[in-house]
Amino acid sequence: MTTIKDVAKEAGVSIATTSRVINNAPHTSEAATIAVKQAMEKLGYRPNANARALVSKSSNTIGVLVNDVSAPFFGTMVKAIDNVAADLEKQLLIGNGYHDAQKERNAINLLINSRCESLVLHTKGMSDEELVQLADEVPGMVVINRVVPQIAERCVALDNHHGAYLATEHLIRHGHRHIAYLCSSHDIDDAHDRLAGYKQALIDNGIEVCDDYIEFGEPDEMGGESAMVNQLSKNTPITAVATYNDYMAAGCMALLQENSRQIPEDISVIGFDDGHIARFIYPRLTTVRYPIQVMASQAVKLALELANGDSHKVTNSTTEQRLYMPILVRRASVATLR
Amino acid sequence: MTTIKDVAKEAGVSIATTSRVINNAPHTSEAATIAVKQAMEKLGYRPNANARALVSKSSNTIGVLVNDVSAPFFGTMVKAIDNVAADLEKQLLIGNGYHDAQKERNAINLLINSRCESLVLHTKGMSDEELVQLADEVPGMVVINRVVPQIAERCVALDNHHGAYLATEHLIRHGHRHIAYLCSSHDIDDAHDRLAGYKQALIDNGIEVCDDYIEFGEPDEMGGESAMVNQLSKNTPITAVATYNDYMAAGCMALLQENSRQIPEDISVIGFDDGHIARFIYPRLTTVRYPIQVMASQAVKLALELANGDSHKVTNSTTEQRLYMPILVRRASVATLR
Repeated sequence: MTTIKDVAKEAGVSIATTSRVINNAPHTSEAATIAVKQAMEKLGYRPNANARALVSKSSNTIGVLVNDVSAPFFGTMVKAIDNVAADLEKQLLIGNGYHDAQKERNAINLLINSRCESLVLHTKGMSDEELVQLADEVPGMVVINRVVPQIAERCVALDNHHGAYLATEHLIRHGHRHIAYLCSSHDIDDAHDRLAGYKQALIDNGIEVCDDYIEFGEPDEMGGESAMVNQLSKNTPITAVATYNDYMAAGCMALLQENSRQIPEDISVIGFDDGHIARFIYPRLTTVRYPIQVMASQAVKLALELANGDSHKVTNSTTEQRLYMPILVRRASVATLR
Repeated sequence: MTTIKDVAKEAGVSIATTSRVINNAPHTSEAATIAVKQAMEKLGYRPNANARALVSKSSNTIGVLVNDVSAPFFGTMVKAIDNVAADLEKQLLIGNGYHDAQKERNAINLLINSRCESLVLHTKGMSDEELVQLADEVPGMVVINRVVPQIAERCVALDNHHGAYLATEHLIRHGHRHIAYLCSSHDIDDAHDRLAGYKQALIDNGIEVCDDYIEFGEPDEMGGESAMVNQLSKNTPITAVATYNDYMAAGCMALLQENSRQIPEDISVIGFDDGHIARFIYPRLTTVRYPIQVMASQAVKLALELANGDSHKVTNSTTEQRLYMPILVRRASVATLR
């Protein structure tokens, strides 16, 4: 394999000069730069990124922690970050935390050990205290979809409570008063906040909260299906269902339709996220839009600014919006109660 | 920040010994190992992965090239690889190639520069020749979902032709003779092979291939929807639709249902992949199962064996199955022609 020595020899300059060119260091003559670059091309020399990282003190890599990259929501989040990274010729290192404190910790350590100077973390298992400490260690760390009060200016989050409130209120405005809620069984803020938003909307409209109407399941199609099975088995008089996300809604709707319940004629269903399936399940899903692309782009830009210690820009960023508001997307899965 | 010097001092051993312990090198006394590990813990020393990589000549990282991690199919593939990696305490570095030769090349170079010794590549843009050359350079390189004849023993692929043949034949057996095909507009083998499988099934059953019945679109829900719009606008007598994948099928079905066409009573639809939405769109989608999890697991295990130069195991592996056969999954979206 070609070494930096071969390149220096071919370019007719010192190894030190060659190294400076490779690492874009200052004080390198244009002639030397051209000679080295030509030599690198001629010899097909591929500079070693680890060695470069040790010199440049940067791996040019952005670390991203997600719950599970195979969940479409996180795929969308990763892609939005990748779009920003690609423009800046940076690569992504992706770790899965699976909402577990220890797994999140291990994944983050791997990202840091791989010299990711910018981190966008979707963490649910680790404590606020641990994240505050980590934020001190890693200037370029940003948290997404969670508010850690002590480092609020480095958190990009969604008002989950408001989103579920909107969804439930939308059903109430269509005359529904017996509204079931299919919640995520994961013990994370998102689940607690959305369930609280559902309850608050009922209370504010003089409707009693009925625990019989609340079911839990994995936040995916199968979880929505099994939660709805449990709900139906109780034979409650529900006329509408609010769900934790679009995937649970899809599972719920498939089950209802298998049981010859027309949507929205017999029962209304509303989702959460406006993920890519929302427009393509039948009937098209009325849901709450989670602007994850916008949020992910802002999070990674902020992380890069912080990593570069660009305090001026960061000051601007801190004045930017951090807590996003979900909005209602009306489609065909909600009807007025007959 | 704590350095290896601090650790050596705390442990009361030489820096060389400390380094050997950190890198699990041979000939380190148990006493020294314990002392160093205690010192590392006490000082909260986090060994630098890049420095370690330079010593150990391995980054402990598996590189994965996908078309686009935000597509559910690739999310599933990445997760299957991650499951194997997690068991071996390896991390994933993921790059997006977007089916473009140059983007694939850049992403692969980044993975190699990051010292990924094992590579699982889903590449469609780069030529066979380029991949053969890369295979020479990188012993741990494995190709997934593509057969490169010269390195067939390092390719884990699916018989796409057979899959589309199965799907089309299933529709024919239900009495359908006017069968549309919604194909991916991407100029990749998968698209060509599946379209050829569709045509062959028609020919083998004495049905004329009608170009009017073939439409193209992006391999997602919106692509399936627009391709079906084009198909319907021709007002052809089709009674069934075979699709490139489940996502195009979902878009096609949503559009048909928006136009009051009952599935499968009025028109039958069959997918490809058996992705996670197949069971949850309504009616549940009859499709062809693409065993991507199994294939991805085998691919990464093979890549790790090859990277370790474990010739004995590799010899076993090479005798293993490399070309997977899709199977039909019967659900509710196909009916016998009335």
